[in-house]
Amino acid sequence: MSFKTTATIASFGGKLLKLTHEAQTTGCEMALNLYLPPSAGKTSTKIPVLFYLSGLTCTGDNCAEKGFFQYGAGQKGIAVVYPDTSPRGLKIQGEDDSWDFGTGASFYLDATASPWSKNYKMESYITSELPKALFASFPELDSSRVSITGHSMGGHGALTLFLKNPGMYKSVSAFAPIANPSNCPWGEKAFKGYLGEDREAWKKHDASELIKGWKAGTFEALIDVGTADNFYKQGQLLPENFEKAAKESGNEKGLVVRHQDGYDHSYYFISTFSTDHVNHAAKYLFAA
Amino acid sequence: MSFKTTATIASFGGKLLKLTHEAQTTGCEMALNLYLPPSAGKTSTKIPVLFYLSGLTCTGDNCAEKGFFQYGAGQKGIAVVYPDTSPRGLKIQGEDDSWDFGTGASFYLDATASPWSKNYKMESYITSELPKALFASFPELDSSRVSITGHSMGGHGALTLFLKNPGMYKSVSAFAPIANPSNCPWGEKAFKGYLGEDREAWKKHDASELIKGWKAGTFEALIDVGTADNFYKQGQLLPENFEKAAKESGNEKGLVVRHQDGYDHSYYFISTFSTDHVNHAAKYLFAA
Repeated sequence: MSFKTTATIASFGGKLLKLTHEAQTTGCEMALNLYLPPSAGKTSTKIPVLFYLSGLTCTGDNCAEKGFFQYGAGQKGIAVVYPDTSPRGLKIQGEDDSWDFGTGASFYLDATASPWSKNYKMESYITSELPKALFASFPELDSSRVSITGHSMGGHGALTLFLKNPGMYKSVSAFAPIANPSNCPWGEKAFKGYLGEDREAWKKHDASELIKGWKAGTFEALIDVGTADNFYKQGQLLPENFEKAAKESGNEKGLVVRHQDGYDHSYYFISTFSTDHVNHAAKYLFAA
Repeated sequence: MSFKTTATIASFGGKLLKLTHEAQTTGCEMALNLYLPPSAGKTSTKIPVLFYLSGLTCTGDNCAEKGFFQYGAGQKGIAVVYPDTSPRGLKIQGEDDSWDFGTGASFYLDATASPWSKNYKMESYITSELPKALFASFPELDSSRVSITGHSMGGHGALTLFLKNPGMYKSVSAFAPIANPSNCPWGEKAFKGYLGEDREAWKKHDASELIKGWKAGTFEALIDVGTADNFYKQGQLLPENFEKAAKESGNEKGLVVRHQDGYDHSYYFISTFSTDHVNHAAKYLFAA
């Protein structure tokens, strides 16, 4: 459960820790980055935490290098956790055959179909094992103040984990999320592989289905999508389906979907708006 | 001379253009990035320009992705030029044999030794051909307001090109510059290869020598060095020699060298302080 710190890197006045640990849920070593803002450990006040879930093919490194969350999080006094996007090196047949399935493409769910069900338990890892391990090892972090965000597949992860676990996260936001995976090529491939052919079972992992059942107060979320995002144009993201489902279920009041003119799917997009998402999380993490 | 735009990417309200052009000085196609802030072309006021010279092994892409300059430059209304670090693909014998010489390692000088003297003319490229081409193709840029900065080998480039060309740049700053290349392994290898064995000839390309001859008013510069920078510890940077030379020649009054506690040589270091360097440049670029 305990972490090995492979590097400590100064960043925006705080420290980025490169961590690894042996995870039981995934049955392999997992790497992640943890950003501790300058204020961490300086007083008896514990630091709130923002989980950032990355997109397809990424590790926890990409956004730590290119997303500039550390800028805003350092100023606000928020720790940022950048987990990996899947288990790795398990030698499951087919895990490295494509960039949008298997390694780097867990979709942050607990797989039920063989051979993935044994180790592809990223939902349990992200919502239970990882936070427990972090709060045990880093007492300066506040386990009662946690928010979640993410990009693309990680935006799907952020929205679904928030919707599945009312009360677990103080806030949610997403960049270009795969918002209706049951109806896009990426999601259909992943859900078929991890969950099997029964589309009814997919609904438990689809933000546009989950939002229909949201009854835990006003659903508040910030979603940014770039109008020049080719994956958006190709129908992989479908934020409009999420908005429609939110409206139809009366959950649209606190939902803010911004269409950012000319922005693509890259870290140039994320870095431009990451401070807005830190500020969104801060509003809830520091609510009186 | 004219540029081909291979991509236009929205970033911090402005646009990052990925450009290529056939350069005469280097005899090959050169790639670069040009960041135009949101204000570019919006009014009749031309936009000042900051050149950022990258370090060994980099291209113009690394800092555009990881350096966070677009954040500050976008706010201040400054264009940023990220040139490449050398000619490429010339098939000169030995150009790809090591990471600290040849491709990606021009040291921003005009080579005089064979076989490098024909194409390794990065000093002419950066100070003459590239700006001329840019100002011809982008009339929204202000050729009379140009500053320069850089990292490591690019910090050496920024300091030496500023010192060699009084009046060409409104300001200079550097991150972890190779400040006395004649006396460090990287510089000795490069200068021997590009300039030959005569150490006297090296002095014209060494900031710690050039500063001694500075007589064009107060020498003002901002230099940041991380105390956990392994290349600093190994004596590749030697900012202390530059400070000493500045003092001995009476040029220390406007020189600010900051030792940033715990920072390394990476883009985590650059991104943390890039806004300070944009603000430093802005002070001169927008001086009344």
